[in-house]
Parts: sequence; structure tokens; C-alpha cells
Amino acid sequence: MELWYTEKQTKNHGITTKIKRSVYHDQSEFQTLDIIETAEFGNMLVLDGMVMTTDRDEFVYHEMITHVAMNTHPNPKDVLVVGGGDGGAIREILRYPSVANAVLAEIDGKVIEASQKYFPKIASGLSDPRVNIQVTDGIRHIQENKGTYDVILVDSTEPVGPAVGLFQKPFYEGIYEALKEDGIMVAQTESPWFNQDLIRQVFKDISNTFPITRLYTASIPTYPSGLWSFTVGSKKYDPLQVDESGLQSFDTRYYRPEMHKALFQLPAFVQELLTDKGE
Amino acid sequence: MELWYTEKQTKNHGITTKIKRSVYHDQSEFQTLDIIETAEFGNMLVLDGMVMTTDRDEFVYHEMITHVAMNTHPNPKDVLVVGGGDGGAIREILRYPSVANAVLAEIDGKVIEASQKYFPKIASGLSDPRVNIQVTDGIRHIQENKGTYDVILVDSTEPVGPAVGLFQKPFYEGIYEALKEDGIMVAQTESPWFNQDLIRQVFKDISNTFPITRLYTASIPTYPSGLWSFTVGSKKYDPLQVDESGLQSFDTRYYRPEMHKALFQLPAFVQELLTDKGE
Repeated sequence: MELWYTEKQTKNHGITTKIKRSVYHDQSEFQTLDIIETAEFGNMLVLDGMVMTTDRDEFVYHEMITHVAMNTHPNPKDVLVVGGGDGGAIREILRYPSVANAVLAEIDGKVIEASQKYFPKIASGLSDPRVNIQVTDGIRHIQENKGTYDVILVDSTEPVGPAVGLFQKPFYEGIYEALKEDGIMVAQTESPWFNQDLIRQVFKDISNTFPITRLYTASIPTYPSGLWSFTVGSKKYDPLQVDESGLQSFDTRYYRPEMHKALFQLPAFVQELLTDKGE
Repeated sequence: MELWYTEKQTKNHGITTKIKRSVYHDQSEFQTLDIIETAEFGNMLVLDGMVMTTDRDEFVYHEMITHVAMNTHPNPKDVLVVGGGDGGAIREILRYPSVANAVLAEIDGKVIEASQKYFPKIASGLSDPRVNIQVTDGIRHIQENKGTYDVILVDSTEPVGPAVGLFQKPFYEGIYEALKEDGIMVAQTESPWFNQDLIRQVFKDISNTFPITRLYTASIPTYPSGLWSFTVGSKKYDPLQVDESGLQSFDTRYYRPEMHKALFQLPAFVQELLTDKGE
């Protein structure tokens, strides 16, 4: 018997992937959690029926939500991840020797526990002494920590259920306040193919909050359309103005310092989302 | 009743997409041809069970197989497309005022006919007086036309069946001979996620044939993994050495002259395929 997991990524399109077995199933206060072992991508974390990460391609998302901001800021010490309970962004943050305090504000403790058990490579940084895990609402955390962070990464689920507020302007304004005077943020902002209205709105909201706003993309096979966007809001440092030769280099599998500025040369149809045309 | 078309892109993974109806089905001497109307991507051309192009995302593939080489060559007059019977690459080639002669060497006349009928926007250039359509084996065509072309685009199907020879070193050597002394070629070379051995081998073969070899990628949602690679072989002009400010600009939806050099800043795991490590 062959088992296949199919995710409708839109109403009319999706991926289907062969599974060896269901590894874990649970229901938290916030969402349904599943981990399945797939033949192509290894273990796969699925929250409310949407793929969040897999063993095989997790490095793309976790490196790319992290290194663009971390390598743009000259000296990131205090870093916050909102969401990101799997620990992948924390793992990448910890590569920077300047980091003294990496806070994870994840609303669902079950995500953290499941990742530690079934994705040990992704969650590997969570036991580091520099990490402070808080099982809490990220919105509340930023309200209670003004002027605290050098870098904030919004590593959220899709904009449904508990994550809706993480895609709205008041949240970005809160992040602005929670950052130090030269702080920088990055949020995952969905697919340029399937979530164009969201990308337009978030880019506009962040542009109206931060003096510097940029968007870049990365290729993630298990995410809808295979192309994913990230939006930067920055108070002072522009990722396009860094001296690439001075950037820190790590043993990464997707991000390279040589691509740091090239990432912002977007396809024309993505670039068009960032202007106000048609609104 | 809902109909869904599922393509296994690897043995263990694929896409599934809702279809409104089957538009066309035929069997040629070379392959099975299907066109289905999908809810998400419009009409979709499927050859031997593999998605070749769709109304919605065809612009990525056709722009990206064409403009990098065409905009690197300072004055392309004689251009050959091997395969590409849908006409999309020809349409993009014809944007260049310098082009006098655009030859399409497609082995399967049924692909051309089906595209003209069901993909009129993609096939729009095929009736242009500068276009010379030859229903012939591309390998034979290049053998019979030495020193003829400024640019050759290898717009092939997957490396199975009739296209196997289009991924082998003798073919690239033939292309080298069919190019003028400053000619340049581009071949579509599959997914950096799912076809790593092929990319390694082709890059090595083209490197051993041409003095300049480069690889770039583009995001194509209906292709395996959503990320696709293209390999350049060039006798004289290096796409990394062009003066970007002098590049021609068109009303394109993916390619922008500003991304011309940035395209070559590859993800680390793709860059690694281009070295001889492990062989």
C-alpha cells in the first residue's frame, strides 16, 4: 500500500508526496500538528495541514530568514524570533559570535517539543545557553520589550488562525518600537505567485513604518509555488549598502555573502508588487 | 465531479492541479501530447506525462532561456532554437531588432501545430517572416550548419526519449561547430534539487567544449522543485562581463537587465554542483 500526503496550496493546486509513515499527531490549543516521514524530503512538519519545514529543504528557509538581516547589522547582540518554534532560525542566529541573547517567542509549546524530538538538527540550537525560550504570544512580547532588540525575525505560520495579527500594520509598528535605534527586522511574506495582495500590503505597511524596506526571495521546493518572499524593515542599515567583502561567511548551504545584494534584483513581476500601481 | 492531474516529478513527489477539461490528446511518432485546461495555470502542455509549459508561468521559462544569451551577445542576427516547438523562445528572440533569421528545429511537428492552436500567445512569433520552421532532428540540423549561428538555445524536453542526445557531449561539440566564432549557447538543464548529477555532468561537458561556462536559475512553479537551471556555453562573450547599463530592455515579466549579473550568484548548494568535488 502506498500512502501519499497531498497539500492543496491553493484551492486548485498543490503538492503530493509519498510518505513512509505518520510519526506524530497532536492537537494544541492553537493548531493541529503532524509530522510525517516522507520518501523525498525526510521528516516533514505540517501545521493545520500546511507544510512548515522538512529535513531536506529546511536549510533554505532558515538560512534565508536569518542571514540577510544578521549580516546587514554590524553587531547583532540581542535577537528575537517571533514564531519559529522549530528552532531553525535560532540555530542560524547562533552562528554569529556577537549574539549574546537569542529570544524565541513561540505561542505553541508543542511545536518546540515536537521539533526537539523529531527534528534534532533543526532544533539543535535551542539548548544553547544564549537562548531564552518564551512560550508566549509574540505580539504581547514585543509590546512588553521596547528598544530591546538589534534584529527581529518574524518566522510565522501562514496568515490564518493564530498568525493573522503577525501580518498587520500594528504589529510592524510594535516591532519598530521593540527594536533599538539601529534595529532591523525580517518577516516571511509568502509566495510571490500565490499571495500577491498580501505581499503588496505588507510591503506598504512596512514602508510606512520603517525608513528602509526591501524584499528578497528564495527557492523552497515544499512551499507553495517553490518561490518564497521575505520583507526587510530597517531603521538604519540598508542591506543594499553593505560592503560585501566584509560580510561574515559560514558553512551555509544556500546563503552566500556573494549573493547578499544580488538577492534584491527581483523578477519583474515581483518588483511590480512593490510599487503602488493599481491601488 | 472534480478532475485533478497529478504529475510524479520524481518517484516520490509531484504536483497535483485541478483541471476544467482535457483540451487535446494525440500521439506522435515521438511522444504523447496532451493539453489540459487547469484552474490555476490556464492551458497546460504535457508531453509524455511531463508539464512543458502553462499559460500562467510560461513567461519565466521563455524569457529566461532567451534573454541572458541574447542580451550578452552584442549583435545577434542568426539564432537557432533546438526543440521549443511551442514557439515561446522564438517570440522572445524576435524582440531583438538585430535578429534577421530565427530558425526553429523541432523534431515533432505536432507540438508546433498544437501550440499554434491552443497557445496562441506563446506561438505568436511563429508566423513572423524572420522565422524559419524546420521539422527536423536538432542534432542533424546542427551537423549540417557549421559556423552559422550567433546564438543557439537548446529548449529541449526532459532527458528521456527523443531528447536524450541533447544532453550529451557530442551534441555540445556540434553546437560549438554550428556557432560563429563569437557565438553563445544556452541549454535548459533541469532542477538543481532533483537532477544534480545531470547538472554536474552537463556543466563539465560544456566546460570542456567552450572557454566560458556559466549557470543560472529561475523560479518556475509548474516545474519540478520550482527551481530550474540553464547552462551557458560561450566562445567569446561572458555574461558576467557585460555592461548592464547598455543592455536592451523589453516589456518582460521576469527578466530585467538589472538582474543579468545577479542571476549568477547561485545558492551554495547549486554553486557546489559546478565544481569537480567528489568526482
